[in-house]
Amino acid sequence: MTDTNLQVILTGRPAPAVTADLFALQEAPMPVPGPGQCLIKTLYLSLEPAMRGWIAEQANYQEPVPLGAVMTGFTVGEVIASDHPDYAVGDLVMGRQGWQSFAVSDGADIVRKLDPDLAPVETALGPLGINGVTAYVGLVEICAPKAGETVVVTTGAGAVGSVVGQLAKALGCRTVALTGSDDKVAACLEVFGYDAAINYKTVDDLPAALAAATPEGVDCFFDNVGGAQFDAIVDRLNVGGRVAICGTIAMPSFPLPTGPRVNRQLLIKRARMEGFLVLDHLDRFDELADKLAKFYRAGQIDYRVDLADGLAAAPAALVRLLAGENTGKALVRVGAPA
Amino acid sequence: MTDTNLQVILTGRPAPAVTADLFALQEAPMPVPGPGQCLIKTLYLSLEPAMRGWIAEQANYQEPVPLGAVMTGFTVGEVIASDHPDYAVGDLVMGRQGWQSFAVSDGADIVRKLDPDLAPVETALGPLGINGVTAYVGLVEICAPKAGETVVVTTGAGAVGSVVGQLAKALGCRTVALTGSDDKVAACLEVFGYDAAINYKTVDDLPAALAAATPEGVDCFFDNVGGAQFDAIVDRLNVGGRVAICGTIAMPSFPLPTGPRVNRQLLIKRARMEGFLVLDHLDRFDELADKLAKFYRAGQIDYRVDLADGLAAAPAALVRLLAGENTGKALVRVGAPA
Repeated sequence: MTDTNLQVILTGRPAPAVTADLFALQEAPMPVPGPGQCLIKTLYLSLEPAMRGWIAEQANYQEPVPLGAVMTGFTVGEVIASDHPDYAVGDLVMGRQGWQSFAVSDGADIVRKLDPDLAPVETALGPLGINGVTAYVGLVEICAPKAGETVVVTTGAGAVGSVVGQLAKALGCRTVALTGSDDKVAACLEVFGYDAAINYKTVDDLPAALAAATPEGVDCFFDNVGGAQFDAIVDRLNVGGRVAICGTIAMPSFPLPTGPRVNRQLLIKRARMEGFLVLDHLDRFDELADKLAKFYRAGQIDYRVDLADGLAAAPAALVRLLAGENTGKALVRVGAPA
Repeated sequence: MTDTNLQVILTGRPAPAVTADLFALQEAPMPVPGPGQCLIKTLYLSLEPAMRGWIAEQANYQEPVPLGAVMTGFTVGEVIASDHPDYAVGDLVMGRQGWQSFAVSDGADIVRKLDPDLAPVETALGPLGINGVTAYVGLVEICAPKAGETVVVTTGAGAVGSVVGQLAKALGCRTVALTGSDDKVAACLEVFGYDAAINYKTVDDLPAALAAATPEGVDCFFDNVGGAQFDAIVDRLNVGGRVAICGTIAMPSFPLPTGPRVNRQLLIKRARMEGFLVLDHLDRFDELADKLAKFYRAGQIDYRVDLADGLAAAPAALVRLLAGENTGKALVRVGAPA
């Protein structure tokens, strides 16, 4: 065991781009668990597009990460010392231990214990974890697709989008992905089972391509981006359409961008648009992760991982994720199992 | 009985304004009911802001009224001859007989029979009719307000808005109206029981006035207008807010106007926006009208009528309604009871 705790702290705010120099490495003393606490060694750190919002100055759905603080993040770790009644040495846990090699926990920032025999532990940060739960809530609970309906997903090859597409396929829907590279188009068709996939960056005429991919219109739309892709897909909504707003990565955070007003579309189509945050659903995490595990064990959820090595690589990996240059769920391998 | 049928036909499309010269009077032969049909004498004709959309060229939620056809509209009428098993001479009915003095019906365009002892029959075209049902569906079923929540209504003194405000008050909510004249502000406060009312046309600083009127934010927003009022109210949405999109009268029909994108607001506030059309709910009309009648009999729904006299006055009355110059539910008295 090392005797220092490597941490990544936030040192600046996006202006407006997220750059690697907004973060700095520091070595802190090895934390010591007190009564009722356990010590967790971080194995994997998960990177999320939403981190752009987590570190922004503007008020958001939670307080921004303070400057000088350890960056927030979901992690998989191993309990290496414990005075906590619920966690024993050797337990694998998914939690919010952040961008650091070691963390002390009283249990409040642990989301669940993991069974490594059910699935590789890193899936707890992807399709069977926060991304999968995000996909499940937005698709199954908000969009509520019926068999035979058409489901369109933006960032369709992404950590969340790829699960949305596969869940929708498992539910009997026609699935269409929008994504940003030919490699991702291939992954959508070959790995994630979409019926159609469009490279929105290179397509000549997005509305025409969408019309061809959705001959019966769009019943459900799971959106991670906002902006021009959103506009084109909303134009294809059927009567009774449902739109889950999961992310807005293609829209600037500030100031509020303008675009076509959706009111009349929602009215004429008797359609619904609803924003959601997976953080509101963490109290149901076990239940939802178990549902996802059933799809996984049935061979209905595949995934790809884009792995960076070592905490020092995390800032650059986040920048790559926000630029859409990752090819799979963006993870950082922080430490080896004890 | 006269021996001709006075009708108002549509002769032009809005360009883009709705003007009285888009309509023309014509005298048609008195219609003769055939087997299984009844003859209805129109007593009252209802005018709706949505008529702007009904006569527009652009595809909408239903086919536009054809040029040369009798203008579409909800009516209260009296059955004056009948070979229909369900309707007897003397029956009062609410239906879609349109802008004409007499109409033959096979029953398909009759919505319900009326009991004149329960409430004045013209309420069947207002608070206990299509407007009330619109208010009920959008407020109670889509917004689903809880006691103590804050409900904001645009066109708060209008035929629909005034019922929304009174239903919300009856459900224990704080109610706030936006409306377009000082007379309507007074009606909101004195007739419709709103806790606050704002004249959006004359207020200096709408966001500041809204902030003062909604100190605890906005939980439910029933919108009839779109545009700048919509933007200001969406900015006040609380987490979990619900927006019912009932109309877009403040937005041009074509081309699609631009404005602030709502995606990020819906995401951060975990809020929902849903469009609806009362025409989708006509199969539940009796059930919903009965619910409204209970509020009415409990003294919780008051209303005002803006009555034009004679079919010839209908086009100008519609133009006044679309300009927001009416002071109450816009009706046309077409004929006297037989």
